Amino acid sequence: MKFATLRSSPDQPTFVALVDGDAQRYWPLSDLISGFSGDMHQLIQAWDSIRETLSPSGDGLPLSEVRVEAPIHPQRNMFCVGKNYFEHAAEFSHSGFDSSTNADDVVPKCPIIFTKAYSTLIADGDEIPRHATVTEQLDYEAEFAIIIGKGGRGIRKAQAFDHVWGYTVANDVTARDLQKNHKQWHLAKSLDGLCPMGPWITTADEIDPSNASIKCWVNGELRQDSNIGQLIFDIPTLIETISAGIELKPGDVIITGTPVGVGIGFEPPKFLQTGDVVRVEVEGMGAIENRVGQ
Amino acid sequence: MKFATLRSSPDQPTFVALVDGDAQRYWPLSDLISGFSGDMHQLIQAWDSIRETLSPSGDGLPLSEVRVEAPIHPQRNMFCVGKNYFEHAAEFSHSGFDSSTNADDVVPKCPIIFTKAYSTLIADGDEIPRHATVTEQLDYEAEFAIIIGKGGRGIRKAQAFDHVWGYTVANDVTARDLQKNHKQWHLAKSLDGLCPMGPWITTADEIDPSNASIKCWVNGELRQDSNIGQLIFDIPTLIETISAGIELKPGDVIITGTPVGVGIGFEPPKFLQTGDVVRVEVEGMGAIENRVGQ
Repeated sequence: MKFATLRSSPDQPTFVALVDGDAQRYWPLSDLISGFSGDMHQLIQAWDSIRETLSPSGDGLPLSEVRVEAPIHPQRNMFCVGKNYFEHAAEFSHSGFDSSTNADDVVPKCPIIFTKAYSTLIADGDEIPRHATVTEQLDYEAEFAIIIGKGGRGIRKAQAFDHVWGYTVANDVTARDLQKNHKQWHLAKSLDGLCPMGPWITTADEIDPSNASIKCWVNGELRQDSNIGQLIFDIPTLIETISAGIELKPGDVIITGTPVGVGIGFEPPKFLQTGDVVRVEVEGMGAIENRVGQ
Repeated sequence: MKFATLRSSPDQPTFVALVDGDAQRYWPLSDLISGFSGDMHQLIQAWDSIRETLSPSGDGLPLSEVRVEAPIHPQRNMFCVGKNYFEHAAEFSHSGFDSSTNADDVVPKCPIIFTKAYSTLIADGDEIPRHATVTEQLDYEAEFAIIIGKGGRGIRKAQAFDHVWGYTVANDVTARDLQKNHKQWHLAKSLDGLCPMGPWITTADEIDPSNASIKCWVNGELRQDSNIGQLIFDIPTLIETISAGIELKPGDVIITGTPVGVGIGFEPPKFLQTGDVVRVEVEGMGAIENRVGQ
């Protein structure tokens, strides 16, 4: 199933709905579950008790008449993973922008974990802020994100998938000059609005994370074309690593890294400019498309 | 003035109080401000309208009869600054644990910004989790934190202090092996419970950030003894840098970096062990003391 956070108009509160992406229809959860008025976090926490009985009723409503928001507002910064595909690790290390590692660290030996704040989140269709006074080198990173369902600490790889509620599409937009100059990546990754995410969350049962294409186009040009099965540190490894000393909580978000083909992989680099349109698509999870603003 | 987040007993909700640290007395804000029942965030947001009229009334109550909690629960990860005192930058770079920079980067040219999640926060007197299955190299870092009052983006240095509501004491406890192995520092810095903070927030008018001693003792041995006026990147620079592309919000926390004398500065390194007691004191802001647990 797919669940979106929707809004009827700018002055109305958001609500959660079951979505059929192909048919472009939605069903408000408050219509399907008696008494439900919560957000995505409350859906996740209620999931075990409602999943068996939940199904669309009637024809639903047209998605074209509502605004699709970023699907979840995490309660702490999103965990993000760096250099998690082999060819991208090489491309980044050779680009001159990776100030954080030495020549013998082209392929990381341990997952590289940094964070993006919720204030980076924007929805499918929103403008990516250009931040022209802060960066000259804005770049895209097609990724998919894990949405944690059941929390826990010390989760072992063999049980990791029991803790995955769903997946969504993300663009880990990055200011490369800040990433290089500030060494630790938080500023470069966490400028306001630098995380398009959505359009919805697809529950884990519908996705095969060992084999799903991930693609990114800029102005229609295919720049990234890989498969999420090629992660260096796979989903169980990421969950085991993070949860070893940090209790994962329902609704936590882990953004898993980008494959080869980002702007700094080109010679000369192809940075994002005002007006560029970036589309990220992950097989089974949908697509998000965002224009770079002024 | 000083404000703490207190709790009468484990099953009671927290409340905010005006505190006299010397006299060890407190006054619940709900007794001083008609209708106030909020937390520290709501005090910060109401500050401009209440600061002139706020004063203790009567003898107050004894702090010994309540539990002092971490003073604020930030709504996104706390911003933290790395290598922000000259002698510590040298000590860290020479320790072999700084995998993030090269030999020519001993003193950073730009502020190094990473984050700690709210789930790291513990109060004065709480046990620091030892995390023995995750790290063999737990280390202390005496720091002071800035609490943002008025939010804003693009804040210039000249106006930066207008946005500082207060200050508090923090211990940026760090797993050095994770810091070295994972390159980006989030995991090493954000294990559950690795941020003792408190005991209260001292409003900005009571602190001279150009001259206040900062000290750290482990089991009574003075390990760090410096002055917060010696920051490489001072408070206005940190606020200008972070807010350039990230809108600072009331209640945001910026932890400013540690001076020389951390465990990895010794030969051999002096890592924290179960039973060690770490005390961090900043002149005018108070002191926190935490024992390392099992």
